[in-house]
Amino acid sequence: MTTTTHKTLIGQSLPNIPWQERPDDCSDPLWRYTDNPIIPRDAIPCSNSIFNSAAVPYRGKFAGVFRCDDKKRDMRLHAGFSEDGLNWNIQHDPISLIKDDQEICDWRYGYDPRVCWLEDRYYVTWCNWFHGPAVAIGYTHDFKAFHLLENATLPYNRNGVLFPRKILGRYMMLSRPSDTGHTSFGDIFLSQSEDLIYWGRHRHVMGTRGAWESTKIGAGPVPIETTEGWLIFYHGVLTSCNGYVYHFGAAVLDLDKPWQVRYRCEPYLISPQTLYECVGDVPNVTFPCAALADADTGRIAIYYGAADTVTALCFCKVDELLEYIKAHSRV
Amino acid sequence: MTTTTHKTLIGQSLPNIPWQERPDDCSDPLWRYTDNPIIPRDAIPCSNSIFNSAAVPYRGKFAGVFRCDDKKRDMRLHAGFSEDGLNWNIQHDPISLIKDDQEICDWRYGYDPRVCWLEDRYYVTWCNWFHGPAVAIGYTHDFKAFHLLENATLPYNRNGVLFPRKILGRYMMLSRPSDTGHTSFGDIFLSQSEDLIYWGRHRHVMGTRGAWESTKIGAGPVPIETTEGWLIFYHGVLTSCNGYVYHFGAAVLDLDKPWQVRYRCEPYLISPQTLYECVGDVPNVTFPCAALADADTGRIAIYYGAADTVTALCFCKVDELLEYIKAHSRV
Amino acid sequence: MTTTTHKTLIGQSLPNIPWQERPDDCSDPLWRYTDNPIIPRDAIPCSNSIFNSAAVPYRGKFAGVFRCDDKKRDMRLHAGFSEDGLNWNIQHDPISLIKDDQEICDWRYGYDPRVCWLEDRYYVTWCNWFHGPAVAIGYTHDFKAFHLLENATLPYNRNGVLFPRKILGRYMMLSRPSDTGHTSFGDIFLSQSEDLIYWGRHRHVMGTRGAWESTKIGAGPVPIETTEGWLIFYHGVLTSCNGYVYHFGAAVLDLDKPWQVRYRCEPYLISPQTLYECVGDVPNVTFPCAALADADTGRIAIYYGAADTVTALCFCKVDELLEYIKAHSRV
Amino acid sequence: MTTTTHKTLIGQSLPNIPWQERPDDCSDPLWRYTDNPIIPRDAIPCSNSIFNSAAVPYRGKFAGVFRCDDKKRDMRLHAGFSEDGLNWNIQHDPISLIKDDQEICDWRYGYDPRVCWLEDRYYVTWCNWFHGPAVAIGYTHDFKAFHLLENATLPYNRNGVLFPRKILGRYMMLSRPSDTGHTSFGDIFLSQSEDLIYWGRHRHVMGTRGAWESTKIGAGPVPIETTEGWLIFYHGVLTSCNGYVYHFGAAVLDLDKPWQVRYRCEPYLISPQTLYECVGDVPNVTFPCAALADADTGRIAIYYGAADTVTALCFCKVDELLEYIKAHSRV
Amino acid sequence: MTTTTHKTLIGQSLPNIPWQERPDDCSDPLWRYTDNPIIPRDAIPCSNSIFNSAAVPYRGKFAGVFRCDDKKRDMRLHAGFSEDGLNWNIQHDPISLIKDDQEICDWRYGYDPRVCWLEDRYYVTWCNWFHGPAVAIGYTHDFKAFHLLENATLPYNRNGVLFPRKILGRYMMLSRPSDTGHTSFGDIFLSQSEDLIYWGRHRHVMGTRGAWESTKIGAGPVPIETTEGWLIFYHGVLTSCNGYVYHFGAAVLDLDKPWQVRYRCEPYLISPQTLYECVGDVPNVTFPCAALADADTGRIAIYYGAADTVTALCFCKVDELLEYIKAHSRV
Amino acid sequence: MTTTTHKTLIGQSLPNIPWQERPDDCSDPLWRYTDNPIIPRDAIPCSNSIFNSAAVPYRGKFAGVFRCDDKKRDMRLHAGFSEDGLNWNIQHDPISLIKDDQEICDWRYGYDPRVCWLEDRYYVTWCNWFHGPAVAIGYTHDFKAFHLLENATLPYNRNGVLFPRKILGRYMMLSRPSDTGHTSFGDIFLSQSEDLIYWGRHRHVMGTRGAWESTKIGAGPVPIETTEGWLIFYHGVLTSCNGYVYHFGAAVLDLDKPWQVRYRCEPYLISPQTLYECVGDVPNVTFPCAALADADTGRIAIYYGAADTVTALCFCKVDELLEYIKAHSRV
Repeated sequence: MTTTTHKTLIGQSLPNIPWQERPDDCSDPLWRYTDNPIIPRDAIPCSNSIFNSAAVPYRGKFAGVFRCDDKKRDMRLHAGFSEDGLNWNIQHDPISLIKDDQEICDWRYGYDPRVCWLEDRYYVTWCNWFHGPAVAIGYTHDFKAFHLLENATLPYNRNGVLFPRKILGRYMMLSRPSDTGHTSFGDIFLSQSEDLIYWGRHRHVMGTRGAWESTKIGAGPVPIETTEGWLIFYHGVLTSCNGYVYHFGAAVLDLDKPWQVRYRCEPYLISPQTLYECVGDVPNVTFPCAALADADTGRIAIYYGAADTVTALCFCKVDELLEYIKAHSRV
Repeated sequence: MTTTTHKTLIGQSLPNIPWQERPDDCSDPLWRYTDNPIIPRDAIPCSNSIFNSAAVPYRGKFAGVFRCDDKKRDMRLHAGFSEDGLNWNIQHDPISLIKDDQEICDWRYGYDPRVCWLEDRYYVTWCNWFHGPAVAIGYTHDFKAFHLLENATLPYNRNGVLFPRKILGRYMMLSRPSDTGHTSFGDIFLSQSEDLIYWGRHRHVMGTRGAWESTKIGAGPVPIETTEGWLIFYHGVLTSCNGYVYHFGAAVLDLDKPWQVRYRCEPYLISPQTLYECVGDVPNVTFPCAALADADTGRIAIYYGAADTVTALCFCKVDELLEYIKAHSRV
Repeated sequence: MTTTTHKTLIGQSLPNIPWQERPDDCSDPLWRYTDNPIIPRDAIPCSNSIFNSAAVPYRGKFAGVFRCDDKKRDMRLHAGFSEDGLNWNIQHDPISLIKDDQEICDWRYGYDPRVCWLEDRYYVTWCNWFHGPAVAIGYTHDFKAFHLLENATLPYNRNGVLFPRKILGRYMMLSRPSDTGHTSFGDIFLSQSEDLIYWGRHRHVMGTRGAWESTKIGAGPVPIETTEGWLIFYHGVLTSCNGYVYHFGAAVLDLDKPWQVRYRCEPYLISPQTLYECVGDVPNVTFPCAALADADTGRIAIYYGAADTVTALCFCKVDELLEYIKAHSRV
Repeated sequence: MTTTTHKTLIGQSLPNIPWQERPDDCSDPLWRYTDNPIIPRDAIPCSNSIFNSAAVPYRGKFAGVFRCDDKKRDMRLHAGFSEDGLNWNIQHDPISLIKDDQEICDWRYGYDPRVCWLEDRYYVTWCNWFHGPAVAIGYTHDFKAFHLLENATLPYNRNGVLFPRKILGRYMMLSRPSDTGHTSFGDIFLSQSEDLIYWGRHRHVMGTRGAWESTKIGAGPVPIETTEGWLIFYHGVLTSCNGYVYHFGAAVLDLDKPWQVRYRCEPYLISPQTLYECVGDVPNVTFPCAALADADTGRIAIYYGAADTVTALCFCKVDELLEYIKAHSRV
Repeated sequence: MTTTTHKTLIGQSLPNIPWQERPDDCSDPLWRYTDNPIIPRDAIPCSNSIFNSAAVPYRGKFAGVFRCDDKKRDMRLHAGFSEDGLNWNIQHDPISLIKDDQEICDWRYGYDPRVCWLEDRYYVTWCNWFHGPAVAIGYTHDFKAFHLLENATLPYNRNGVLFPRKILGRYMMLSRPSDTGHTSFGDIFLSQSEDLIYWGRHRHVMGTRGAWESTKIGAGPVPIETTEGWLIFYHGVLTSCNGYVYHFGAAVLDLDKPWQVRYRCEPYLISPQTLYECVGDVPNVTFPCAALADADTGRIAIYYGAADTVTALCFCKVDELLEYIKAHSRV
Repeated sequence: MTTTTHKTLIGQSLPNIPWQERPDDCSDPLWRYTDNPIIPRDAIPCSNSIFNSAAVPYRGKFAGVFRCDDKKRDMRLHAGFSEDGLNWNIQHDPISLIKDDQEICDWRYGYDPRVCWLEDRYYVTWCNWFHGPAVAIGYTHDFKAFHLLENATLPYNRNGVLFPRKILGRYMMLSRPSDTGHTSFGDIFLSQSEDLIYWGRHRHVMGTRGAWESTKIGAGPVPIETTEGWLIFYHGVLTSCNGYVYHFGAAVLDLDKPWQVRYRCEPYLISPQTLYECVGDVPNVTFPCAALADADTGRIAIYYGAADTVTALCFCKVDELLEYIKAHSRV
């Protein structure tokens, strides 16, 4: 893979990521794709819903791991491939995990995957049953064979997200400790590792605050390296009298000490407002899990689950967004 | 009434039940009527909503008992009549209950009726206030005069559904013991009686399991007799962080020992996905209460409440459905 | 057995029931035995606690069924025998239930037994696991062999108590419908049967009210027949900021229509005040399960569980008590 | 201002209030504006939603105070102006409060404003942070400078609504005591004052009852004086298994003793049924905060928040409405 | 009454208040009376418990208002008299309230009284039913005739405590806004009045903090005037996994602006440790409601309820206590 | 230290550990010390309570780390020393933690310590505030200077207990993932480390089951090495209607794969039954944190907290206990 350095974005040239210019009547820092949702709930025969899914560049095209809840409402991970990042060919069967060590827990469910290219392969993290939800790590070279590693955390933990390179010589992962159910609290923490097996040097990164992120927060896509720091998108939950509402916003973490928050945007960037975000299996959910960034143009495309039902897309430009975050930051 | 025996369905010839062929682009075992909802929420002047309602064949046409919540949001039962099972003439006034024994409880509300032709009359069961929700039984010959019998159960119980004939010489009823409120648990049980007054020989039939039916389950239409066993449709509830989601699925019970489950379909058959199922007084509810089956063609039409607001219709063919259930069964 | 008729009490002569006169400094209608508790928690090797237990006259002496929680904290029923009703020889092994019909539910636990002499044998009712707590009925002739009948109720129900004779030609049972856990509500209902298998003609008897009985109520000992009506003792629960407090009081039901309350005593008769009632596995519990009444003298001895840990005894005289109830009655 | 007396309405001539005749196919006492919502959620750049807002006549045109939740989801009050009551020019910045006494609490949030012309100025009441939600009072002459007075209540209280003139020589205010969160209970009370600073002579006005108003109720617009009494619109909440549903209805209070209810309409007048009422940040909310009444024609226009997201309008005629209320009244 | 000024205490000479010197082995600032409890639960025939009660000097002796829960567990207020403040003659009948204005709410229950000599009479404040708990005010001259005034607050409020003189020309009252039940939150506020009828100028005084006072706090006895400020004792609640634990501590408020806290003692002064504080109707409660202070000697005797069952006494010396509070203060 | 090998116990000779023979009338596998509690709640001036504490052999005598809640009810760790393990000299000031890396979290509270001699020093693990409860590790050589290491876990976790030697070349720790409050669930897990900083290879060890351990379980003292495996004592919680009841029992883990349970004793060994276990700040708690074992005699002395208030002691003999466990084991 060729890697270039945009004046702000540090990373790959990805000229073919999905893109659509901001509509004339819109001045928001993020804007939705007009043909949302890009993946309907019934894209494959068994699916009840396809959302909270992770796309990455793959051999000049795109691949991904998708959360597909089937019609038994079991939570599964499916691989998929795409020429353009918009039209996806999702495998009809869920992925199988190759487990070298039988002491590792049995598999019961997996959801909310993230995919991270790290050194020489694609690592997948997701929420895994391990006598409760915990953060699992696996890897793949080709999105066909997936190998299961040790669980990265004890239960109860969700939203584990790797950084795309070592920092201070150590692997780093964000996560959100939680409890057994529809947890009503949750901060973002960072853990470190020298081998992706043993984790420690835990640090607190960000807590809940203002209304849209007052119940709990959790990391979304793999952090995007910029000259300003690690750009992260994260979801924030407000509890209305009719339940949880999932928005998402952004922050910038220090490049060398990524548990230090440099900027944190006070307004949310996306909240559930369209019909496909408000109506579905869980009304009022927007939940980002992946972002593609083109270092040449500064374009970013964000994949997010909508209403726990479908997959949608929105866009931004890195310089505009960073400017917006800094202008609206309170740490 | 003439009764014939289809190769699979055991019961009446009902050539005029509502019917619409499966759309070409659909391969699901059940499919929705394209003109849903068939009964809007404001079909009669007083109604806030009309749903969870029970239609039966009646004198070559159709009659039924309907849950109509009025604009005070009181829960009422109304009778109705139809030529074709699609267009309904619902009485503007709720039904009155003739009570021969004054010791039987006063009437405060009734909801979620089922109607069952049994021997020589139509029996109605519903959820009745009896110092809490309990299962009531009444009967009618003409859908004009309704007679109230003893409550079949103590509180707290809902979703009482009679079998359409005696089995082992005894009347049989499914029900779902519950608590006083929006109960967060619930299995299906069977009770037996020799006189429709005293009930006993209680049996456990099915418990909750997989996600879509993990909170509680409850019987829907009157069981349909087939050569494979009693075909039942039942609702199953999943609790999302924004509340309950009501799906429905199917199972087949043993003909002679109907507390024994022969097949139980793992995927749901209908989940709330259309606007009329997702948006309403209670979002995300599909709740079946009645089915019409034509023994000659094997056609089945299912009436279900949508979003606790309107009444909708869907269809299946008995042989296809049984094949599907058996192919996806886990007991 | 010889049966005589005291001027108030209708029933047996039982001259040897436990008795202790009211202390001089006490004017309460009930008074505690000075050597309480009569059964310590460790009366048999396996027991964690022995409480909420049922004693009856048996062949000129006494027998009973006892709730013994073992050191796994599993809830078991043990038989016991006594010469004087005070010193008990409790069997070291729990009773076994002979089950003629294998369709009846498997046994998992039993607690809070009541024993009722009815026609020709001793019937035992208790709270039984049947996919949730339900009322079971069994019988014995000798407190050695116990036969299991059909569960009398669906779940969720507790505190099933039989009347000691048929009324209006029917068997009658009080019970308290509840939910799956530490239920926070509950009224007393009455059900009727012609064969002890099928139950119906359900009636509401009493609801919660005033503070000490504001959370839930439940029948205690087998009703005692008097010329004024059926005398019942029942527990009533108040919820303090530190949990449930179990008191007990009394009422008188109509002899012929026992779902009609003739008198209901406003003050409680016993509330947890002694150390053995306030300190134990569940603090602040007094829970009556059995009463012995001597028709010649009008003496009544009441067995009650204390702090869900030990068994205690208190006394009253029927005429004094009825006078007190009538003087403090509000229905 | 000129004040005339319609045969029923007592108050101003307001010939230019928004108006649209009842549709031919509608016989309800209230009907919605066909171009609802009149204020979209994004009417000003910072707004996430604009709802639960208060419009009044102002210098021959209209002014108001609007609840604008911004994209941080902070709750703010904004002033606005309109020529016709339909098209609003809402200030982009929230109002600032002039505070003469520094002992009065700091400002953190304000929501659900009501505006009341009283004697010589416009008083604004709203839900204010004061170590919890409490009722604040401020005033303005021009909707530019707003002065903050003492909080009218201790926490925890919401929905404070002033009467538009003194009664019995005293100012009067309705309010709804509550708790710290999404309170699950609440009645309407009335408090009295001689100086708008000290409040006392508290009276209970109305409690919860029937299903649509079974969880809590709260006053809406400033009471409208009629020859029959004070006409009030108020919201009522029903708790479905998916959360709260906010309807609104009406009552008539005694002119001289406004804590006495003369009529109370049993059916609701508006319940969430349109897409803009059912889908939004909080599904299923209709919440009235202001009404304009023209004494010459008896026309009333009601502003209400929909789905906690947008502002909508509906209409009625005072004579028809009073007739309807009286015909459907139960006190 | 003669009023003298001790060097620290400002108030009356009360040489005959109960007193017992600190035990030699005790260095705590408060110490318990060795003959606690001074009032047993059954001090009068109808009483279930007597606690949370208010004693004051009266005509050279003592009088008081006592919380007596009767054997229906109804909460009542009884008057009582004592020669020495230790042995109390409590009236067998509850006090009756003379109500001049019939619009004031009906009486249903009263609990946790405080009594305050103010200007020319004894004012009593207590928690009163007013469609929920609210603060009531009454007065008496002789502890025989009690007059009911307007409720001082809307519901939901408890622990209303008057200051013993006007400050800044206004009456002042502490209170603790709460909700309808066993409220799990609560701060102390101050309200002001010019006539004891209308209340306003509300101020926040103290919030919850450190563990023993982390759930809620509430004022106890009438504030004691000292040269350092108003000395108040207040209860603080910690929630253990087995319920609420009520301790009490102390603070000093500014003499002229009593909503300003000058000192606040971090450690508690009394926590439930004796058997009569740990075992009773509500385990683990110590709840102070009254204090007697002798201006000549600086002695203070504090009456407190124990385990919501009995009344106990403890002592301190004002100079020692103030020194301790200042040494352990954190505001 | 000299280390010998008893036929069953593998470890040190500790001839001077506290000891008292089993009473004649007791046949239980564990028996209480007759002079319990050995440490009263007020053993040092600042203490509200001293419990859940860890004693170890130290230079021929004993040392320990104690949970002392002070009179602010703040949770602190204090060091202490003893000649005989019975009479303890507890330091009046809490221990200070030396923190070499300032990135490690600030200290707010510590509770429920365990102390483990491992290789060359004493390691202390405890429940530490780290934006929620988490497992902290520190070490000391002399119980005077304590050094803080990295937190071993993310929140939310409690009851971290180290094994006293490496197994399979790795350090091993038991812990109990939980949530933020009085967690109502919890299993025992095992985590592994090569450096006591990074932890991974997480394994599930034991879940909840039977009644006394149905709510949650958690490891107690440092595991004791025996020829049969690692002997562990652990607490198990049952939820009564009045709160949590803490018992303790025992299990034996595989020597080489300590996440495998070889034996698990069904009955509890100690349940709250004495006054000092049933009455205190949290009624009904017995909570073991440390054990001393003498390899020569097989004697084991167990320190446990009682009622979250005081420290108590009980005894057993290793061979008898293992025999009992094996005889009552169900895995």
